[in-house]
Amino acid sequence: MSKASIVMFSGDLDKALAGLVIASGAAASGWEVTLFFTFWGINIVRDENKQPAKPKTMIEKMFGWMMPKGVNKLKLSKMNMGGMGTSMMKKRMAVKKVKNLQGMIKDAKELDVKFLVCDMSMDIMGLQKEEFIDEVDELVGVGTYLKESKGADLTLYI
Amino acid sequence: MSKASIVMFSGDLDKALAGLVIASGAAASGWEVTLFFTFWGINIVRDENKQPAKPKTMIEKMFGWMMPKGVNKLKLSKMNMGGMGTSMMKKRMAVKKVKNLQGMIKDAKELDVKFLVCDMSMDIMGLQKEEFIDEVDELVGVGTYLKESKGADLTLYI
Amino acid sequence: MSKASIVMFSGDLDKALAGLVIASGAAASGWEVTLFFTFWGINIVRDENKQPAKPKTMIEKMFGWMMPKGVNKLKLSKMNMGGMGTSMMKKRMAVKKVKNLQGMIKDAKELDVKFLVCDMSMDIMGLQKEEFIDEVDELVGVGTYLKESKGADLTLYI
Repeated sequence: MSKASIVMFSGDLDKALAGLVIASGAAASGWEVTLFFTFWGINIVRDENKQPAKPKTMIEKMFGWMMPKGVNKLKLSKMNMGGMGTSMMKKRMAVKKVKNLQGMIKDAKELDVKFLVCDMSMDIMGLQKEEFIDEVDELVGVGTYLKESKGADLTLYI
Repeated sequence: MSKASIVMFSGDLDKALAGLVIASGAAASGWEVTLFFTFWGINIVRDENKQPAKPKTMIEKMFGWMMPKGVNKLKLSKMNMGGMGTSMMKKRMAVKKVKNLQGMIKDAKELDVKFLVCDMSMDIMGLQKEEFIDEVDELVGVGTYLKESKGADLTLYI
Repeated sequence: MSKASIVMFSGDLDKALAGLVIASGAAASGWEVTLFFTFWGINIVRDENKQPAKPKTMIEKMFGWMMPKGVNKLKLSKMNMGGMGTSMMKKRMAVKKVKNLQGMIKDAKELDVKFLVCDMSMDIMGLQKEEFIDEVDELVGVGTYLKESKGADLTLYI
């Protein structure tokens, strides 16, 4: 069976989009696909309606405030122009009948794409597992990521 | 035969350079190489002298104006400094006898590197196939990209 | 034996961190790992205490001044905020007992990760081999990078 392992490092709208399109495309063709969310990419799987289980330190709260909380807050990596570019891009996606990120995450999950979150990054950024969307399967270390990448056809760092 | 499949996502001068050097290097060593231009990377294969075949909507025109039209308009991802850094880099490349991007694209093509453009990105950004350089082989979807990546030795997202 | 080949293109603190964690993790699991430093990524292996062996032209000096000289000068790719974000991140790494980049480079080297530097980028940026940290193994061209990537399980462009 073909296999793909994708590191979702960036929390940008356009890059998240690219990663999810490749992941779902591969899963739909019968590939075994793993998404490994790390660093800024963890913001993609934050749930805007969930709260942390334990109290946070001041610096942890600051990280939480400054980073986008979930897919609806992501911005383009370029041409954001105070939000105007991002709005234009979303509009174009709707016009061209391309699903939004929330829809793409649901699709990926239905196609059995694995959603792994890097526990070290989560810790550094002061996030807690209770703050993630239900689609997240597991918190893992780099060892699990490497196991998933072994023998893969496609390995990307996005 | 060894195989490389490279996603050209970024439309930055330095990243385009890296992708093309790797692609041509691999092709010159007998590898089968595919470049898959998507999102901002599509700007690399826009032809500055070509015009769209069909009229564009206002928002499509705006995307077209705001994005670099072809290799000569690309900027560095860092240290652009209002164009000064980009000029310095091009000068250094010339001094060190490194080909410019246009030359690199020609070389890659002569070495049979495949140039594929992502049709979904093209649509979202309001570009048309008549606007691309002659080196582009085909407009394709993610399925074709995955087929090209199957069993590849080297898969990169640039 | 499993094999990983990682292009270190970016000279950002967060991306260098990701690359080194993956490299050391893989090497610790018995993988054969190569890091290929190119473009901005070369700044990661500049030694802040070393000097060039030959005199530099004005433009070469300027590149040298404008780019971060070594790991201690690297900044976050996002949320740097005039250095505040980068300081916060380093503090968090210390709190969570994550090694700093210098420590990670030492670890990677002890685990036999290969440190290769792209000679073409070095030339373009006006750097000299005498300016690099002792961990660098060799200056190489794209051909060596491709040889290292042949048959790899994991190939990333960071």
